[in-house]
Amino acid sequence: MQQQAPGGYNGQILRVNLTNQTTKIEPIDPSFCRKYIGGAGFIAYYLLSEVPPGIDPLEPANKLIFAAGPLTGLTLGGCARHTVGSKSPLTGGIAKSEVGEHWGAQFKRAGFDALIIEGKSEKPVYLWIHNGEAAIRDAVHLWGQDTKATQETIRSELADPKVRVAMIGPGGENTVRCACLMHGPFDAAGRGGTGAVMGSKNLKAVAVRGDNLPPVVDNEGVKKMVNWLRENMELVKAFSDYGTGSPMPRFEQLGNLPIRNFRDGGFPSVDKISAVTIKETIRVGMDGCFGCPVRCKKVVACQEPYHVDRAYGGPEYETLGALGSACGIDDLEAIAKGNELCNAYSLDTISTGLSLAFAMECFEKGLLTSADTHGLELRFGNADAMLKTIELIARREGIGDLLAEGSARAAAQIGKGAEAFAIQVKKLELPMHEPRLSKGLALGYMVNPHGADHMDSLIDIFYCNFTEKPDVTVPDALPLGFEPVPYLDSGPRKVALFKALQAKRLIADSLVLCALLPYSAAQYAELTAAVTGWDTSVMEQFRIAERILTMCRLFNVREGFSAADDKLPQRFFGPTHGGALSDRSLDPDELEKAKRYYYYLMGWDDQGVPLAGKLEELGIERSEWE
Amino acid sequence: MQQQAPGGYNGQILRVNLTNQTTKIEPIDPSFCRKYIGGAGFIAYYLLSEVPPGIDPLEPANKLIFAAGPLTGLTLGGCARHTVGSKSPLTGGIAKSEVGEHWGAQFKRAGFDALIIEGKSEKPVYLWIHNGEAAIRDAVHLWGQDTKATQETIRSELADPKVRVAMIGPGGENTVRCACLMHGPFDAAGRGGTGAVMGSKNLKAVAVRGDNLPPVVDNEGVKKMVNWLRENMELVKAFSDYGTGSPMPRFEQLGNLPIRNFRDGGFPSVDKISAVTIKETIRVGMDGCFGCPVRCKKVVACQEPYHVDRAYGGPEYETLGALGSACGIDDLEAIAKGNELCNAYSLDTISTGLSLAFAMECFEKGLLTSADTHGLELRFGNADAMLKTIELIARREGIGDLLAEGSARAAAQIGKGAEAFAIQVKKLELPMHEPRLSKGLALGYMVNPHGADHMDSLIDIFYCNFTEKPDVTVPDALPLGFEPVPYLDSGPRKVALFKALQAKRLIADSLVLCALLPYSAAQYAELTAAVTGWDTSVMEQFRIAERILTMCRLFNVREGFSAADDKLPQRFFGPTHGGALSDRSLDPDELEKAKRYYYYLMGWDDQGVPLAGKLEELGIERSEWE
Repeated sequence: MQQQAPGGYNGQILRVNLTNQTTKIEPIDPSFCRKYIGGAGFIAYYLLSEVPPGIDPLEPANKLIFAAGPLTGLTLGGCARHTVGSKSPLTGGIAKSEVGEHWGAQFKRAGFDALIIEGKSEKPVYLWIHNGEAAIRDAVHLWGQDTKATQETIRSELADPKVRVAMIGPGGENTVRCACLMHGPFDAAGRGGTGAVMGSKNLKAVAVRGDNLPPVVDNEGVKKMVNWLRENMELVKAFSDYGTGSPMPRFEQLGNLPIRNFRDGGFPSVDKISAVTIKETIRVGMDGCFGCPVRCKKVVACQEPYHVDRAYGGPEYETLGALGSACGIDDLEAIAKGNELCNAYSLDTISTGLSLAFAMECFEKGLLTSADTHGLELRFGNADAMLKTIELIARREGIGDLLAEGSARAAAQIGKGAEAFAIQVKKLELPMHEPRLSKGLALGYMVNPHGADHMDSLIDIFYCNFTEKPDVTVPDALPLGFEPVPYLDSGPRKVALFKALQAKRLIADSLVLCALLPYSAAQYAELTAAVTGWDTSVMEQFRIAERILTMCRLFNVREGFSAADDKLPQRFFGPTHGGALSDRSLDPDELEKAKRYYYYLMGWDDQGVPLAGKLEELGIERSEWE
Repeated sequence: MQQQAPGGYNGQILRVNLTNQTTKIEPIDPSFCRKYIGGAGFIAYYLLSEVPPGIDPLEPANKLIFAAGPLTGLTLGGCARHTVGSKSPLTGGIAKSEVGEHWGAQFKRAGFDALIIEGKSEKPVYLWIHNGEAAIRDAVHLWGQDTKATQETIRSELADPKVRVAMIGPGGENTVRCACLMHGPFDAAGRGGTGAVMGSKNLKAVAVRGDNLPPVVDNEGVKKMVNWLRENMELVKAFSDYGTGSPMPRFEQLGNLPIRNFRDGGFPSVDKISAVTIKETIRVGMDGCFGCPVRCKKVVACQEPYHVDRAYGGPEYETLGALGSACGIDDLEAIAKGNELCNAYSLDTISTGLSLAFAMECFEKGLLTSADTHGLELRFGNADAMLKTIELIARREGIGDLLAEGSARAAAQIGKGAEAFAIQVKKLELPMHEPRLSKGLALGYMVNPHGADHMDSLIDIFYCNFTEKPDVTVPDALPLGFEPVPYLDSGPRKVALFKALQAKRLIADSLVLCALLPYSAAQYAELTAAVTGWDTSVMEQFRIAERILTMCRLFNVREGFSAADDKLPQRFFGPTHGGALSDRSLDPDELEKAKRYYYYLMGWDDQGVPLAGKLEELGIERSEWE
């Protein structure tokens, strides 16, 4: 591979084998960095090439990967992120999830770009990574602890309050399939169950600290972007003011807010749980990720009736929806408490919330009874039952053990038509955006290799102004060569736009860059060039995204996924009960058609299997996956 | 269409109907400019939407279009060009051809972006365009004149020696199918027979003069590129020193130089006709296009044995090959004379040269005899016969009348297997680069909608260093997301690279920008942004190129072209007689496979017909072509 400019991004991988208790440092080839960028790209590569097909995600052969990218750790808004990936215990396919906080920046400063964890420790351990060195340390005393205590204990042991800790609570230890991977007590790499994989390896935490700035080729280029963001903070003002979730009343009005397991359409008390109300009531501060001026993270505290510890932050929009409206709950303090519990136990709030909503609907339909719930009245709106059940899930007790399997597996176990109430794609529960409202979003949920993830599929939602303007006016769509497309359009123009925006998101996940920041695709490329010195471009990055997505697809195909798995739950082919979407439902044939066109554009056959020609074109060697 | 920034490029079209002798000025919508850029883009749009299917290219219903682009007329190297297009009398499909000189710059300064000529004048006329006004003037006295005299007479009539003149000589008047459209006496929009269309309309010339600088939004951005070019003149030094054709001996050695109608492989006297020898012998100066510091245009003069008028410039590489080695001729003065004749009569030197080579091979095979040639010994190497036959072609006399139809039609008329010697694709004769040497080039010849044109297909040739390094190291391939591909590769990576470079070329043809200048795709986009104010990008420009190419394809499909027309002459499936390629031939099945993959990437079906979904995706409205 000639022509590969080494640039300022030429790092190394830390490989830890927990079975053998060994650590190894591997240099990364500069041409490899350029081909896969980092983050989601590294994860797709290493999972595809190193994880054997057909394994149980919870057996030692699975790998857990933390990957930073060239932008991770820059002192610039949105650059604090890294990506975590594994074979998902929830979907059985590829999982990846991004997270902010300070962990990634410290990890980069410690001298690494990716961490690959293999095997399984005999007894609980944690990993301590510090300035180019790594040690495996005993964690028997930490097992069973919540995330706050875990972090405190580790910091105290290492005598360094600045150590950053990625970890699991009891949810991950008990391999709850939707267990997330907490970074500090309130930042989650949430989706796909990477926390369960960590638990299955007897790995409690990864603590990091580093003092060496990662290299930047063109500091002026980075400064330029810092200044640009400073001058454009207006674009993220709502996030700075409220964090996520301020437009919830509008979402409810439009139909974007999931209500009672995506069944209903009206939630008149939505005002009680929005981020605006949080600011006015239980909020005690705001926090942020490393180097980011947006500071979008709510910190809340309550005393009565629920004691909520401010150490666990506050609920994001997804949590407000999942533990709130999706469960028919409008008690803000209860939602804040639920958020605290999920963060303490390392449970993904989205999957947990929708699994609860699933159980509530089953309960109301008589598919679950109080015999199943040990007397809990697990009905929509019952906040106490919601909180109690979160505890049970984390401990895998009673009904919690069933729901710890996720809604899809629980439904299969319950039978009797319960599947209709499991609102998931590829067994990953839907995030808090309504596909009936936007066909780009619907397609995103369907085809995303990680399942129905809010990080990969929010195409129209972010960009359209649903009522007044039916066109999707993506800020950088025109410079990318796309004209606006109405949000209810599912034709080729929409599919092509979706594909481009999906690629843009995957580039963000590889760089790794926060998608809330309003950078254009051109700015992604400029920033990459400034840091690495590569003469890169939007086009190169989009081709890389195509390669990464295709590798994710290959991973899933190898695990037996097919076009049949790229489908929405039946619920969305009917309207909501009441609300703005009471007369709207999706047409499955129309979506199938859009899906086929998407396959076509991706170079996949009608079953969604990448064509041999496309693999060759993208430089995906068969040795990488066969 | 919202979001369309008007920018600094918001021009107008001059529409001239020669049947009614009317002129009309039409404003161009800014969103239209952005969607089609200019040049080749405008031509594809107007031909597809305005030329009725099935017409004879030489009947009044055909249209002749001159289109400038946003960069035409900038005082920057490579920005003097415009594009000419029509339904081709040679191929029956879409024709477009670019040309430099000063005409385009003056046309822009006169206030126009495109000129659409319709109908047919009853008697010869010429058009005089000056500062926003247009007049149709009598040209009866000019009919029959060569190009030098035509320009002189018009300048004298208009009393302005700075008037620039696009025109035809007798070749165009006599509708020789390969007649070119001369701009001044030595710059040709050469390929596809647009000069014949002009002749069929009784239009002798289009004279232009303008005094108003076209608007530029960001002069600093343009200056930046001027400085960049000044600092990188080394990259075009060979063109400045010699013009085109200095590496001819190397081409001969490698097999890239066509010899005796692409039949043979050795031409030991190649040194006698190279641009290096020209500099040392008959060259009397260099000239250049408007605003360009490269000045790559040779000016030659001879007295004995052939008098060559310096007013007609000197032979480019394509001419040195077509009238030289392809005809087995190594007499430089004779080639220079042939060049003069073609320029004086407005004949495309490539098609003329290869039609001559075709005739020579037929003559040597006995398919043509001296009875057909009025006694001319039309054999390879006979310079006098070559020159005499050019005269006959221009006047459509004797054997010249047959060859004026082009090699494909002449072969059909001769029969007896003469088709084997017509080296053309879609009836357009091949330029002077050998497809057996590079499979990207082979594919380019096959699928280019305009036929085997040297301006759309030189993918590998420009970029590979044939012997030492088998990879195609396109300067900006990596920034575009492509890695080097060996020149003998025809797999998906090569096809995708070809598609990207074909798109880049089509962007150049739309801006309109000289492809000899070493600008990257990123610089194309930057320059476009500087001039227009559009927030554009490489990706937008590549999507536009895809749209334009698809519209060209639609034009051809409507005229009955199919996948069967995307094929190379049989000759290339065998080796050359002697020379570097005496053991190399192309595999038709391999090229068919590459072609199908190209169709796939373009969104065309197996017959090369654009899919309905792709048309919708690219925003090509059916009203534009049905």
